[in-house]
Amino acid sequence: MGEVPHLTTALGGPLLQIEKHLLQHQTKVESWFRAQWLQTPAPFYASVDLRNAGFKIAPVDTNLFPAGFNNLNPEFMPLCVHAAQMAVERVCPSANRILIVAENHTRNLFYLESLETLRQIFDTAGLDARIGSLREDIEQAITIDLPSGNTCTLAPLTRQGNRIGVGDFSPCVVLLNNDLSAGRPDILEGLDQQVIPPLSAGWSDRKKSDHFTHYQAVAAEFAAQIEIDPWLVSPLSLQCGDIDFMNREGTDCLVKNVEIMLGQIQQKYDEYGIDKPPFVVIKADSGTYGMGIMMVGSAEEIANLNRKQRTKMSSAKEGSKVNNVLVQEGVYTLETWGEDHAVAEPVVYMMDHFVVGGFYRVHTGRGVNENLNAPGMHFEPLAFVESCNTPNKTNAPDTLPNRFYAYGVIARLALLAAAREVQI
Amino acid sequence: MGEVPHLTTALGGPLLQIEKHLLQHQTKVESWFRAQWLQTPAPFYASVDLRNAGFKIAPVDTNLFPAGFNNLNPEFMPLCVHAAQMAVERVCPSANRILIVAENHTRNLFYLESLETLRQIFDTAGLDARIGSLREDIEQAITIDLPSGNTCTLAPLTRQGNRIGVGDFSPCVVLLNNDLSAGRPDILEGLDQQVIPPLSAGWSDRKKSDHFTHYQAVAAEFAAQIEIDPWLVSPLSLQCGDIDFMNREGTDCLVKNVEIMLGQIQQKYDEYGIDKPPFVVIKADSGTYGMGIMMVGSAEEIANLNRKQRTKMSSAKEGSKVNNVLVQEGVYTLETWGEDHAVAEPVVYMMDHFVVGGFYRVHTGRGVNENLNAPGMHFEPLAFVESCNTPNKTNAPDTLPNRFYAYGVIARLALLAAAREVQI
Repeated sequence: MGEVPHLTTALGGPLLQIEKHLLQHQTKVESWFRAQWLQTPAPFYASVDLRNAGFKIAPVDTNLFPAGFNNLNPEFMPLCVHAAQMAVERVCPSANRILIVAENHTRNLFYLESLETLRQIFDTAGLDARIGSLREDIEQAITIDLPSGNTCTLAPLTRQGNRIGVGDFSPCVVLLNNDLSAGRPDILEGLDQQVIPPLSAGWSDRKKSDHFTHYQAVAAEFAAQIEIDPWLVSPLSLQCGDIDFMNREGTDCLVKNVEIMLGQIQQKYDEYGIDKPPFVVIKADSGTYGMGIMMVGSAEEIANLNRKQRTKMSSAKEGSKVNNVLVQEGVYTLETWGEDHAVAEPVVYMMDHFVVGGFYRVHTGRGVNENLNAPGMHFEPLAFVESCNTPNKTNAPDTLPNRFYAYGVIARLALLAAAREVQI
Repeated sequence: MGEVPHLTTALGGPLLQIEKHLLQHQTKVESWFRAQWLQTPAPFYASVDLRNAGFKIAPVDTNLFPAGFNNLNPEFMPLCVHAAQMAVERVCPSANRILIVAENHTRNLFYLESLETLRQIFDTAGLDARIGSLREDIEQAITIDLPSGNTCTLAPLTRQGNRIGVGDFSPCVVLLNNDLSAGRPDILEGLDQQVIPPLSAGWSDRKKSDHFTHYQAVAAEFAAQIEIDPWLVSPLSLQCGDIDFMNREGTDCLVKNVEIMLGQIQQKYDEYGIDKPPFVVIKADSGTYGMGIMMVGSAEEIANLNRKQRTKMSSAKEGSKVNNVLVQEGVYTLETWGEDHAVAEPVVYMMDHFVVGGFYRVHTGRGVNENLNAPGMHFEPLAFVESCNTPNKTNAPDTLPNRFYAYGVIARLALLAAAREVQI
């Protein structure tokens, strides 16, 4: 934990410019955010994957059912506890029992560590917190030993009338940590208890393209406030519908949009003097876990997809089919860590509208233009060593608290986009 | 900062009992507090002096204009920043400029360090924060170099119509860090800007006896919730009015109340098997800075006060006269630090209803029954090494996070009493 990520400083200019600019306009940034949260309350919690290309910092994924709490710096647990208290007060001040509804992949010990860390945050905040599972093969509570030495207890969800619980534990609040990729389970429909985030925020209803449409608007408003080019904080996005990769149907739109997108990126690269080949990321519109994601550097690659690639793009988590895809500007990750220059991608965690921490996904075997959150891939978590809310204007913009502040700003822009997206 | 206070563990029993009890009932404690804050919003900020006698932990002073922010552990700055953001959002979400109104003792560098630390908390939270002075001899902004290497800039307050500011800085919010012992300044009356805490919370209006009357009620309600004797968390209190120490008038009431109080304490000591002589603290009802405070072990001491003692009791800060006094149970400080067993008194800091840190006043030259916050006295600040909001039920109750949690609970009881006291 003590080690500080070695950050690439070779490409100085524009990187420092963004961070310096955010610092210089910090009061404006923060008062703008305060006004935004009054209009659109933040989701209960979220994590945002960022890519820092040096010349731009942009979100590439916003998770409303975040895992990975175990990767946060334990020193910042007090921040999580404060923020969890705030978040609970905001949605249900009288709550004293909270039920966390888990994902179904119960064999992933990393995920169970995250669940238990999340449970402990609420426990420490003075709430009785339990974890419930939707899995039908869990018929009674099971306790799993974790590598950290903790244990995680999963109990089967039961429903009586319009209330769910585990055993005789009847919670005031139901907190979803299951992204509903497999659909909205009947057991969660029409509950008298408050369900947060709402079921409609799950991937069964949500689309990445909606999120990024909101993000473009948020980024444009924000950029106007502090007078920057919105491109410096947002990835260009287009979308295509009715695609059937297996039968090669609907790919014309994809080929066209990839061409358009590569052209747009090149234009921006020319404007800023970036000497790198543009690339595009194609994502299943409702996918998650890095499934149904593909990087391409030219439109021809779409036409030439082999069977394996087409199968991969056709299936998302839990077997759901990919029909709509998001065509998004690829953002290089130019932060590296260690002597081997392992690629590092920051992930920022928020509760209510507070940034509570983050970590880097560090991966030695991947390139700067590859997705670091792919199925089965291994990454080393590297907790942020400083909080994201203590910028210091008198220090250099690329010192850690200032870089982390910049990450916290961009992550909150994505949080605001998600807030608008799920607003009822 | 790294050193951990050595805490006396000799008197195990009842100390551990209170702390264990608070831990065991943490969920109840926290949900009770949540419900209380809904009914009575917390003051913007406060600090509470506690005394830990081993067999009881009680607040002895609640400061609604806290100084000493410079004594907090810098590691917990992120907590302060979060809480300051919350506090500002609660009272004035659209604010982006805040003016701190300072005390008049501008030569006290420790105070100026605290002011500047407070200013930096708001600055880091993304507010434009300045410091204004009421002193008439400050005719233009002065910048003072501080021992920490920081500087503190004090500017003269100016009023235009119903708004105050410094120079061309016109704040949305006016934050008092001046306790108004010298009275309510005309320049602060009838402002269009929000003034927090309200002028009525200053010592020109406030009485310690009111605070402790509210505290008794809060402690009784709290104790009933978790089924403890309220005496374990509160000092007994009585009051006397119309006292003129110089002319020895009105001291009959004092003699009588000291006798009653000593009897009541002895009864409690007998009940709990405490083998120590009871003592009583006599405090000016509107005093602060430890002025107008006296410890007595018998009623005779009142009759035999010498001229120096009477003079001391007659004058409080900035020459205001003492008329009403609070007769309060003396609470031993049985926490000591280091090999010399220096007496240590915890001070807990809060913003909104969040505990943001604390420190020990450590004093080698004082006894366990003496006031550690007296005029001209020197203390060593010893920052809490852990936050107050990460209790761990699986650890021993006297481990640091758990002890600090207990302090945070008692301090918040005093905060709640203050909230009820200043409620408009």
